[in-house]
Amino acid sequence: MPPRRTRPTLKDLAKRLGISESAASFALNGRPGVSEQTRKRVLALAEELQWSPHHAARTLSGITSMTVGFVLTRDVQEFGMETFYLRLLTGAQSVLSDRGYGLLFQMTHSVDEELAVLRRWSEERRVEGVIISDLRRGDPRPAYLRDLGLPAVLVGGPDPRKLIPGVTVDDGAAIRLLVEHLRDTGHRRLAYVSGPADLLHVHRRIIAFRRAADGIMAEPGVIGTDYSDEQGRAAAQRLVRAADPPDAVVFDNEVLAVAGVRTLNGAGLSVPADISVVSCEDSAICMALQPALTAVQRDPTVFGETVAQKLLRLVHNEPEPVVEAQQPTIAIRESTRQR
Amino acid sequence: MPPRRTRPTLKDLAKRLGISESAASFALNGRPGVSEQTRKRVLALAEELQWSPHHAARTLSGITSMTVGFVLTRDVQEFGMETFYLRLLTGAQSVLSDRGYGLLFQMTHSVDEELAVLRRWSEERRVEGVIISDLRRGDPRPAYLRDLGLPAVLVGGPDPRKLIPGVTVDDGAAIRLLVEHLRDTGHRRLAYVSGPADLLHVHRRIIAFRRAADGIMAEPGVIGTDYSDEQGRAAAQRLVRAADPPDAVVFDNEVLAVAGVRTLNGAGLSVPADISVVSCEDSAICMALQPALTAVQRDPTVFGETVAQKLLRLVHNEPEPVVEAQQPTIAIRESTRQR
Repeated sequence: MPPRRTRPTLKDLAKRLGISESAASFALNGRPGVSEQTRKRVLALAEELQWSPHHAARTLSGITSMTVGFVLTRDVQEFGMETFYLRLLTGAQSVLSDRGYGLLFQMTHSVDEELAVLRRWSEERRVEGVIISDLRRGDPRPAYLRDLGLPAVLVGGPDPRKLIPGVTVDDGAAIRLLVEHLRDTGHRRLAYVSGPADLLHVHRRIIAFRRAADGIMAEPGVIGTDYSDEQGRAAAQRLVRAADPPDAVVFDNEVLAVAGVRTLNGAGLSVPADISVVSCEDSAICMALQPALTAVQRDPTVFGETVAQKLLRLVHNEPEPVVEAQQPTIAIRESTRQR
Repeated sequence: MPPRRTRPTLKDLAKRLGISESAASFALNGRPGVSEQTRKRVLALAEELQWSPHHAARTLSGITSMTVGFVLTRDVQEFGMETFYLRLLTGAQSVLSDRGYGLLFQMTHSVDEELAVLRRWSEERRVEGVIISDLRRGDPRPAYLRDLGLPAVLVGGPDPRKLIPGVTVDDGAAIRLLVEHLRDTGHRRLAYVSGPADLLHVHRRIIAFRRAADGIMAEPGVIGTDYSDEQGRAAAQRLVRAADPPDAVVFDNEVLAVAGVRTLNGAGLSVPADISVVSCEDSAICMALQPALTAVQRDPTVFGETVAQKLLRLVHNEPEPVVEAQQPTIAIRESTRQR
């Protein structure tokens, strides 16, 4: 943590250069209305004082955007099914609004588009910091954000290269809880219908599954999906048709689990009489289903609150307290039973 | 619709007054750095040209916030259960991001707090327009927004005083569809577990229900709730214990319906064998339940798109095309049957 220093105000800057505040502001904002010579002097002083664009934005006449951004690359149609992000947004937003901050939300179709949004938000000083999610292997965003000088917190970290901080979820622990429960209840042929393996949190879950289920894995043991209802159904079909079908299936979230249960039922398999089913994400839908689904319980609202608190501390250069990671627990319901 | 005119730029304004652009901008923004005399001249000209603060914000040197806001007064804990608003946000946001706009989202605990947020957003020019929802009887927001000069679209309109435009949902039609289906299938004692009656859309639904169910209403016929799981269960309990329990219940959304079905089952009533259940909002949870719930189908994503399109037209003073309201349809599933 660098030592905190008093940041010069726009007034200080203008006074030191013998120009008006408005001229200094225009120069820093790259707007017309000041001479090229003045602009150069202002920018040189700004550089000398080691103002990052971010710090400049926050301290210019004390005007700040009082906004943090959240950009998410997802398919719009599929997205509305999951309550995870809504609850995350709700939690983040409650912390932010207590501090007078707004939350700027944007969905994009690709990581490239996401980078363009981050650049625009940073250049136009629309946000003081951002929340990013769904880190992929070789993800360009952490380095890009560091270069922009934009404070950022990663949802579901950690960033392997440690370029930006994350609020960590122990994905391995969640999977281990489910597999241990299935092992303890006598299941011996486990399968895992996962999300896309290029997402780092999915990658970590797959590794944890293979380790925890060592010796009791079905064939196929892991089937990847894009989290869509369609691929959830296709994965369940593959498992039903396998030479030696599983006696328990772990689904990566509740959307896949619902699609899976329907498909299993359609193929004449009863849950939990013939096959057990568990979900790696809990939500109202898991409780409403009959049988109600055994699931990993984490509160995305609390998670969102922690993310927002961490980001505001970064933005305001406040010391980081020791944060205890939310430990997952398991809700054992009707979809699993002793074999 | 007033005739469209070319709005003067900051440059025009400064030129006409013989001052620098930066001075004009500072005067309009109420920031220090210009004399009191200059400020008065700038503001007088701005008034002469009938610049509303909104127009000024949009046209000042062409700099706009490129952001619209959505503020919603809801209980944070309950909120995460409903997918309606997530899907609405997703739809709105997809239209906005195609036009380079961000969506600023904030939840508040009361309408007073909501007014404070709207004022701050307007004064600080953080947004070019806003989406508001959940209009109540005697709601102060439409007049407040008109006074602020902030373009706004009401979700689920219309505003009875016609102060701000809304994207209309035919709440009466949705209820009539459900009641007709129940009447046609031989139900003769209908009850309606509604949301809070001070919400105008709930009020319209209750009136439509009383009219459509005339002669086949149970006693009690309508039970209001705050949309919480808890009050959903309490309402179902009241119906079970009634002297002459209903043979069909309309729940205002899927959260109430799930709570209701669990309570009915807990009291030994089977759906649909003993009692039929329908939901006024559809979602994945209605399809995942066993029995799957008969529900009114509307696509909140499309609704969000329409709301955002209307708001952008207002912001940019573009002509309003004739928009066909989304007509509700009914998905008949397993939770209703012929009596």
